[in-house]
Formats: sequence, C-alpha cells, structure tokens
Amino acid sequence: MTYAANQAESAENDSINWSSGAAYVDGKFVPLAEAKIPVTDWAYRRSDVVYDVVSVWDGVFFRLDDHIGRFRRSIERYRFSPKETDEEIREILHKLMALSGLRSAYVAMDCLRGQGAPGVRHPAKARNYIVCWASPFSTLVPSDKIERGMHMIVSSTPRIPQVCVDATAKNFHWGDMNISMFEAEDKGADYPILLDLDGNVTEGPGFNVFVVTDGVVATPDYGMLEGISRKSVLEICDDLGLKLEVRRVSAKELRDADEIFVSSTAGGVIGVSRIDGRIMNNDRPGPISQKIRETYWAKRTSGWHGEPVKYDLV
Amino acid sequence: MTYAANQAESAENDSINWSSGAAYVDGKFVPLAEAKIPVTDWAYRRSDVVYDVVSVWDGVFFRLDDHIGRFRRSIERYRFSPKETDEEIREILHKLMALSGLRSAYVAMDCLRGQGAPGVRHPAKARNYIVCWASPFSTLVPSDKIERGMHMIVSSTPRIPQVCVDATAKNFHWGDMNISMFEAEDKGADYPILLDLDGNVTEGPGFNVFVVTDGVVATPDYGMLEGISRKSVLEICDDLGLKLEVRRVSAKELRDADEIFVSSTAGGVIGVSRIDGRIMNNDRPGPISQKIRETYWAKRTSGWHGEPVKYDLV
Repeated sequence: MTYAANQAESAENDSINWSSGAAYVDGKFVPLAEAKIPVTDWAYRRSDVVYDVVSVWDGVFFRLDDHIGRFRRSIERYRFSPKETDEEIREILHKLMALSGLRSAYVAMDCLRGQGAPGVRHPAKARNYIVCWASPFSTLVPSDKIERGMHMIVSSTPRIPQVCVDATAKNFHWGDMNISMFEAEDKGADYPILLDLDGNVTEGPGFNVFVVTDGVVATPDYGMLEGISRKSVLEICDDLGLKLEVRRVSAKELRDADEIFVSSTAGGVIGVSRIDGRIMNNDRPGPISQKIRETYWAKRTSGWHGEPVKYDLV
Repeated sequence: MTYAANQAESAENDSINWSSGAAYVDGKFVPLAEAKIPVTDWAYRRSDVVYDVVSVWDGVFFRLDDHIGRFRRSIERYRFSPKETDEEIREILHKLMALSGLRSAYVAMDCLRGQGAPGVRHPAKARNYIVCWASPFSTLVPSDKIERGMHMIVSSTPRIPQVCVDATAKNFHWGDMNISMFEAEDKGADYPILLDLDGNVTEGPGFNVFVVTDGVVATPDYGMLEGISRKSVLEICDDLGLKLEVRRVSAKELRDADEIFVSSTAGGVIGVSRIDGRIMNNDRPGPISQKIRETYWAKRTSGWHGEPVKYDLV
C-alpha cells in the first residue's frame, strides 16, 4: 500500500472499531474479525505457511528484530517469496498496534503460499502473501494457574520428527499437539509435553521446556522451535550465574526433575507444579523457575530488548 | 439451514454467478470465491481440521457413501463434533453441485475446529463447523502428461509418521509433501513419492502408489491414506484376475518395478513412465497400468458405485 493510499484510508479508520484487534491481509488493513483467507488457499489446505508471533507489553515490542529475523528464515526455509521486506513488515506491525490502540498484545505475522490457477497444483506457481494481526495479549494459562504452577503430562503422541517437518521454521503442523491437548485434558492436566521418537523431550503446544535438577537448568537442543523466549531464558541464566546445559533431555530426566518450567511468547516464563500427576515443590512452581520468571518480567519492564510502539502512525 | 430459509434464498441464487464453484460455509451457501475462514481459526492456525474429497463425473458422484463414511471416521478420530449429520452433508454436496451446474467436479468437505473465546486455548472449547465446496474437476497432471506417463522422484523428505499424525484420518499436514514438490520440480519431475522412516513407500501429494513386478500388483498397507480410489483399484484387480499384494513396499522395489501407477480422486488411475530418471516401458505408462486405468473409467462411465447429482435441488 502506498503512502497516499494510507492517508486516504486514515480518515476512514476513525469510524472503525479496532479494539478487538487489527489485521493486515495482503496489503489491506482491516479489523481482525474481518481478516479471512480463502478455503482454497494452500496455506490452509496444505498447511503451506510459516509464521511468527511477537508480544507487546505496556506499549513495547519485545525482541522484534529477533522475531522478524526468524520469520524471514522460516520464509526462506520453505521457499516463500512475499513482496514485503523486513522493514515493511516492521512498519505493518507498528501500524497494527497503532490502529488497535492496545497496550499489550499478541502480534502474529504469517506468510501464506496462496494458490495456483484452476487445475494448477504446484506450490511454486502460487503468489505468496503476508497476513499480520494484533490482538489482546493472552497467556498459556490464566493467572491463577500461573500462580499454582501448570499441570503437565508427557504425551503418548510423539512430536513430528524434524526430518519430516522442520520445527525450527515455525509452522502450523500441530496435529500431534492438538490430539495431545485432548489427552492432557482427559487426564486433568493443563498441557502436554511431547517427546521425539527416541523418547527425548521436544516442546509443547506453543512453548519450550526446561528442567532443573540439582540446581542445573537443562533444555533440549533438537527437535523443537528455537524459541525467542527460550533464548531470553538462556541469557537470564547467564546473568544469574545459573549452570545451564543445552542438550538432549530424556523423558526420565523430565519426570524426575526438581523443577520444570516453560518459556513462551504467551506469558514469558511459567512454572510447572505437576508432571504426570507427580507433585513438585509442594505443588507450586520451584524457586529457580520463579527467580527466572521474576527476572524475565523485571527486565522486560525495564525495556530489555524493547522497541516502543509508534502509536502516532495513525 | 432450514427448508424455509433455503427457499427464501433460492430467488437470490438466480442472480449469482456460481460457475467457478459453489461453497457451503457453516450453514450458508456462497460462491466459492467468497468462501473464507478467519485467520484466527485453529483449522488454519494449528491445522486442526479433517477433510475429504469426492469427484463427480458427467453428473454422477463416485462412491459418495465411501467418502462420507471416511469423512465421519476422520471427524471422530480427531474428536470433532459438527452439527451436520451424514445425511445433511450428502444433501449439502448435492445442492452445491446443483448450484454450480457443473457436470464434472471436485467436491470437498472440511470439518474445522473453529476457535475458543479470547484467551482460551484448548481445542475442546471450540465450536466445530463444516465447510464444503464444489469446483471444476481437475487432475493431478494435464492430459498430455497422463498420456506420456508421470515422471516421479523418491523424495529425500520422509512422510510424517503415522504415530505422530494419523494419515488414515485425512488431514492437511502436507509440510513434507510441500517441500518434496519443490524437490521434484528441481529435478524436472512431476511429483514426489514419500517413504516412511524405515524406507518403505507411503504415498505422494494426493495419491496412493502401486508397483507392478512380474505381473503382480503391490501397494503399501501402512503409513498412508486408505484412498477410495485405491480401494477401487483393489476391486478392479480382483475383477481382472490380477494378482495383488497389500503389504510393505520397499524403495528398492519401487525403483526396480516394471510399472508404477498412482490412484487419486484427481484423475482416477494414472500411469508413471519415469522414476528417479529411470525410463520404464519405452517412456510410457505400462500395459497393466493402462488396463486398470481404462477399466476404471469404463466402469465409472457405466455408473459403477455412482449416485446421480440431484440437479433439481435449485
């Protein structure tokens, strides 16, 4: 969209209710409720799409460069060619925040395959495009569950192997996660943690996993998304002088851990108090998990890796 | 939608151009180009959706009972609860054909997860719904490539294992297929064939695979969709007195086969003339493949497993 078109549009924007969210769909800004994609789009029909999500807290984007950088690597990994540059994507995300007026938000960016002409089936023949949106911030679980610690199970469904679908290119292949979420609910837990085919910990639906044993923090090095929140935890462990190991983590190590916590754009760092029914730390998040959570939010509040939203864009 | 509402709508239908396709989206009939889903829907965002596709040739649905039956099994396997019964789905598909006026079509039915209230993340909390659509019939490859035989490669990306995402419940987890289609194009081929993690043949993007060696037809028994067209081929082999084996098929057996052919709703039976650059049958589909293809179409034309479209529904 050109600058002139943007200006022409801005008078119109005043009369639209953007409070429940704002979206950008292939060049056009619309209220989130009107942001839709064709049922024939391969992004939906073949899950041929990559995405990323960045959070805004109190008017400040967190690690926006990291998220846009990872989004671009996902785009290249699966051979998409959207027209928007990284700088344009950044401006779109700022404008969505400005339109919505939200102070804290979950801000998504998707790159969709699109579709071919009728009868054409090859993904190389489609025009790729970008969809972004901002909606009110939400966390993996409500605040009372953050307080008491999340209850987790080890899923009986293994994570899709890295060699089949590259989890480091953020994607919507959640079939294993979806059915695992039902399994967790059936067992009275909040979330599942998925293992790989060799029985090592990978990730859960929207989060990375950390275990703490004898004061040492460990997190998987393979088979999962390389989370930006995970990266933040690694930096915080370094700051706090905690011993940290990035390596394979077995299911046994997870089940026997002193503490477990997860990292996610949807909440930062959240402690776990039960794993497969076993109660840890007197049924509350453990002390190291809590220290990392508090440090994470204290640093964010102080502007760490922050980029203030340009609310004056509209 | 009630009968009365349908009637009220029918006057309106006359003025709409349905020729490029007709769709049903959660109770409402719309032209296919207007059939859209929210970008926030978990069917898209988590690929939390199952589907099926039936073909219509010359005004006759093929094995509609089989497709609706498999669709219902996929729905139950992944714990969806759409409001439509099988009989209502059947009526919707007939009505879409009647609206479109198409004589030959590709007719899809999807069951989507929907989404939760803001901040709610569990799939059990969503209202599931149905989307169906009919568009002009198309085949895996254009007719000249059907004539000369498809050129295939064995993909270097393995198929997502059955234990992670159940391929027998028809789903959109195509990340492995999507990247394999690029690999096929890079190597000058039409389509990839994917192996499982043990090196056995599974399926390709939208088709099942058959090999013919010393007059015996063999097809995989595990790790792939149990195709309705595949089922038709099994019946035809029986009719023709061909020896048939349903079992594991190794990559070596595929690469060394006398003939290869595929089955798909998008074209029925189509022969292969090249595998990984090796030319088979003088660079044309093999004689047994051709015999099965001809039998398939002859039987369909004669009404085999057919259900005539109710074009008088609108």
